[in-house]
Amino acid sequence: MSAERSIAIFSPGLLGGSLIKTILQRMPGVEIRVWARREEAAQEVRREMPAVFATTSVAEAVHGASLAILCMPIQHMPEIARQMAACELADDLLVTDVGSVKGSVVETLEPILTQAKAVFIGSHPMAGSQRTGLANASGDLFHRAACLITPTPNTRREHLDRLRAFWMKLGCRVREMTPQAHDHCVARISHLPHAMAVLTTLAALQRDTSVLDSSAGGFRDTTRVAGGDPAMWAGIFLNNKDEVISALEDAAGAMLELVEMLRSMDEEALRRFLAKAKALRDLLPAG
Amino acid sequence: MSAERSIAIFSPGLLGGSLIKTILQRMPGVEIRVWARREEAAQEVRREMPAVFATTSVAEAVHGASLAILCMPIQHMPEIARQMAACELADDLLVTDVGSVKGSVVETLEPILTQAKAVFIGSHPMAGSQRTGLANASGDLFHRAACLITPTPNTRREHLDRLRAFWMKLGCRVREMTPQAHDHCVARISHLPHAMAVLTTLAALQRDTSVLDSSAGGFRDTTRVAGGDPAMWAGIFLNNKDEVISALEDAAGAMLELVEMLRSMDEEALRRFLAKAKALRDLLPAG
Repeated sequence: MSAERSIAIFSPGLLGGSLIKTILQRMPGVEIRVWARREEAAQEVRREMPAVFATTSVAEAVHGASLAILCMPIQHMPEIARQMAACELADDLLVTDVGSVKGSVVETLEPILTQAKAVFIGSHPMAGSQRTGLANASGDLFHRAACLITPTPNTRREHLDRLRAFWMKLGCRVREMTPQAHDHCVARISHLPHAMAVLTTLAALQRDTSVLDSSAGGFRDTTRVAGGDPAMWAGIFLNNKDEVISALEDAAGAMLELVEMLRSMDEEALRRFLAKAKALRDLLPAG
Repeated sequence: MSAERSIAIFSPGLLGGSLIKTILQRMPGVEIRVWARREEAAQEVRREMPAVFATTSVAEAVHGASLAILCMPIQHMPEIARQMAACELADDLLVTDVGSVKGSVVETLEPILTQAKAVFIGSHPMAGSQRTGLANASGDLFHRAACLITPTPNTRREHLDRLRAFWMKLGCRVREMTPQAHDHCVARISHLPHAMAVLTTLAALQRDTSVLDSSAGGFRDTTRVAGGDPAMWAGIFLNNKDEVISALEDAAGAMLELVEMLRSMDEEALRRFLAKAKALRDLLPAG
């Protein structure tokens, strides 16, 4: 299990930028190479972090890297993986990503990179923000976050161990699961809450935004993630649509139950329903 | 517009306790009298705040008070108001409450207290916590919170001004509206988000709680209020059921739209849908 020598970050947005800052802090001596789609974004990296090499050339960014991490929206990953596969790659190149969906991503990227004699394993650090861009990146973003890594039957243990060691170095709690188990899990714990925050925002404000003047912490927290990037989240929802629909159907079923209890004024049933939700929510440690 | 001389707080829970602490800080010299249902709760008040008079007798608590504030769950307010109406009351007694529903509360309490030659006006400070009880009470809870006060055609301007002055002294931004406008507004901005947090929690965790291990800030924030007190929230939902059902129906309509966009893989429509929610959520000032 060798430590990484040179790490290439593809797309220095909120997650990519936070990776750069965290690696600078926690892995001194490791070279960082950054690919950005736009020259202005590469310049911003050079200006903000002079120790970092930044380029718009995929070939230059991946040159000599032992680890490459795809941080762009998942829709754009296959295109970059294909460009990467056509480059000269180090013998020990391990490629991963930080996308919020793993089934479709792993299915597409693993064969592209395997053909190029590189290795791909999916990752999903459960960290982020409704804010986007390098300006909001933080060296603390991954501290104590869960990071889900998703081996397939083709994955070799030594590569999985290297990937695990990398995320642990960044402060993550690493969990291993199949891409399919991952997509089920995050549909429930991340994509559903995001969708519900969007629906709450629309139903609360669509007819009349003046109610905002009376809002408090409940509305603020419940809808916070609805401020996230629409293009990124459209990609996530569509790439995990079966699991997201299934989670939404469960929520719709619970909503019907709730409306029925209200219509029939069944206070006892309503209390039990709310107490069941409270007991489940209370499983989450305070913090 | 006279400053208050003596304030009686009925029920020293999270809100009542926070009122006591805030009044002690911001209205020095004003007498505070507390009514608690249980003797142990009255003892806790005396132990924690020796300057405060605490009793389980409604008559003792309201004796000489110029302002009385009902802070128990809304289901229990009529019973206490009736007991209060049977007591000897100061000539200038103004009664208010902190309940989350105003239509049914005002309709019930205003006649009870008017018959006793007291005055009732509803209040709803938009402050709270999923935590309950005196132990979680805070002298900062009302700072910069919106407080909705709900006059009726019977309300006299001088009483409304006194109530407004009281809440402003506590640090609130006071808004005046009818009880009906209040119930519509809070259904959208508070009761709907609460219901959606409950539904999100149930749909996320009901089948399998192990996904919690991969949760992050999105789930934590989106579901925070689902940890609230089930009995209190059952009362709130049932006392505002028409408005809550109407808000849930809007959310159900938006959910159907979302599921349809996912099924038809309509990325453009989905982006617009998410962008509309983001634009609405972005109206809320950061903070």
